[in-house]
Formats: sequence, structure tokens, C-alpha cells
Amino acid sequence: MYKTKLDQKFSPYQMPCVIIGTIINEKPNFMICTWVSRVNRNPPLWIASINKKHLTMIGIKETNLFSINFPSADLIKKVDYIGITSGRDIDKSSLFEIFYGDLNVPLIKECTLSIELKVKKLIELSDHYIILGRAINSYIGEEYKTNGVPDMKKMKPVIYTGVEKKSTYWLLGEKLGDAFKLGKEFKK
Amino acid sequence: MYKTKLDQKFSPYQMPCVIIGTIINEKPNFMICTWVSRVNRNPPLWIASINKKHLTMIGIKETNLFSINFPSADLIKKVDYIGITSGRDIDKSSLFEIFYGDLNVPLIKECTLSIELKVKKLIELSDHYIILGRAINSYIGEEYKTNGVPDMKKMKPVIYTGVEKKSTYWLLGEKLGDAFKLGKEFKK
Repeated sequence: MYKTKLDQKFSPYQMPCVIIGTIINEKPNFMICTWVSRVNRNPPLWIASINKKHLTMIGIKETNLFSINFPSADLIKKVDYIGITSGRDIDKSSLFEIFYGDLNVPLIKECTLSIELKVKKLIELSDHYIILGRAINSYIGEEYKTNGVPDMKKMKPVIYTGVEKKSTYWLLGEKLGDAFKLGKEFKK
Repeated sequence: MYKTKLDQKFSPYQMPCVIIGTIINEKPNFMICTWVSRVNRNPPLWIASINKKHLTMIGIKETNLFSINFPSADLIKKVDYIGITSGRDIDKSSLFEIFYGDLNVPLIKECTLSIELKVKKLIELSDHYIILGRAINSYIGEEYKTNGVPDMKKMKPVIYTGVEKKSTYWLLGEKLGDAFKLGKEFKK
């Protein structure tokens, strides 16, 4: 357990990989984000942290709306394509089948879980903005459920890691155990 | 791709599972947190979102310091034990071997990656606080590196999902591919 200090440019940890949707110049646009988390239970609030230089920030500031879409592993090549291109150079509006909920923000049909959000607050940091958003609705594909309940193994969520200069996508692995149960065995 | 609305009490997505460390009444205390993310590149900033009722909030408000520790899957029973118990009822200070960096905040030797942070801002939500923290140092166990680089497969990070009332811990799965490369294949 010998410890050394780590260069903090990158942090080697397990991040969710999502697609952020916005409307820019009246067209849907998409970017990849891995700095995203739910932050409040009721109302359902989320944060996404987005580099200030991203075109997406223009859409978020203009419309005060955005979406968070969770791709399955089957979409990974298209996901990475979004990540290596900018809406400044290419039109991403026809990359996916899009649907709309109650807000004018694009949701991705091919994704497993899509959330439409209103911006509650922008928190400006040195190179990123934290977007604090209130989820208005969440949508899930019925094919990702088992007995009416979302099934993570069917959803095949993508996990992202950035280790020094090497960034990798991963599948969800085997089940380790049930939370709020394993600890009881430890207690004994 | 038939979509239905989801009850937003729980969100079925892939979360990192970490241990938050604080000093409370001069003793180390620990809690589990799954709403955590890096949010800025330089300086390295992180958020953790913590339920207002947690004892940890007292420690954070008093000391303005906290740590984020990433357990490996090998620690999972102890991790869950921390999650099902409160520092109000039991003394968690001797659960782990502890080390200290530059700040008076407990770091966990058995964890793969430990970060010591100063609180920059508390953002009060209805049931949670977002703790915005500046990472002062990150420490990694040398045994989790391959050729001097952190190795995610050796680190065995824990992924957490909460689906309706069922919460589960998962291993990191197989590698899907390299980011910034797969998209080039899609482009062709």
C-alpha cells in the first residue's frame, strides 16, 4: 500500500458517459460529457460540467434547456464520433432519431435513458461551467426493462476512464452484490 | 424504441462509488457517496452531493475539508457496512488504515485512489448540499500501476446503480474501445 502523488491533470476513475443535447441555431446538436451526476432527490436535480469552449454552452445559455442521454454500448462508435467532432464543423442534427418531450430540447431515441432538463443555475469555474439542471421528465425504452423494472444489464451503460493520455470506454461488468445487504455480512 | 416516462425518484445509471472522509469531533468518519464528479481541469475541482442529514455535513462545515477515496471491489463488504451505519451510532475511525497528506483529513490506505480537498463552496439544494472542492493532492497505490501508469483493471473500481428500490454494486467490465479512435472508424 505504498502511495505516491498523482499528476492531477487526469483522474483515473469510473465516469458515466452521456450525450448532452441542445438546440443551436434551431438545430439539435450533441456532445459527449463524462462529468455528470445526479445531485438532489426531490426535485430531481443534475449537474453536467462542460468546457467553456464547447459550442453546447452557446445553446445552453440561449435556451436554458438541455438533455442528458445515456447511450448503450451498441452505439459506441457513434458516441466517440460525437466526441471527436464539433458542431462548428459538422451538422450533428441527423445522427440520431430524435424525439421531444415537454421541452424544446432534443432527446435521442436510440439511447436507453433520456432526461429533459431546465437550467437552474450556471456556476462558472476556470475552464468549465457546472450546469445545474432540474429534470422535468425522464424517458426509458421499454425494451430495457425486465418485469417492468429498468434492467442495467439490458441497458449496457458505457463507463469512461481517462488515465494520463489514454481514454477508454468500458462495459458494465459482473454484479458484485446487493447494496444494504453485503454490509450485514461484514457486521457479523 | 417505444419510450415511457420514468418515476424520477431513482435514476438507473452507472455511478462511481466512493468513500467520503471527514474529521468529526477530532476523529475520522466515513460515508459512501455515489453522486460525485470531477468538474474542472485546472485547478482540479470536484463535486460531491451529500444528503443534508448526514453526519458528514457537520464535519465538512466545521473543517472545510474532506477526502474522496476510491475503494476497489475487494473492499465491497466494508464499503456497504459504511453505507448502512451512521457515525452517530458507531465509531468508524478504526475501520481502515489511515494516512494523512498535507491537510488534516483522513485518507484510506486500502483504497486505490485518495484525494484530499479543501471546500471552495457549498451549494444548498432542497435535500442535498453540493460540496465543491479543490483537490490539493491525489494519491495512488503503486501496486495499481502498470509500467508507471494507473491501470483501471488493477484498481477494480466499484460502480453503483439504484433502480427503483434495488441498489447494486458492479465490477468494471470488458474494454469497449479507445476513445478518440472508434469515432474515426464511424467516420469512414
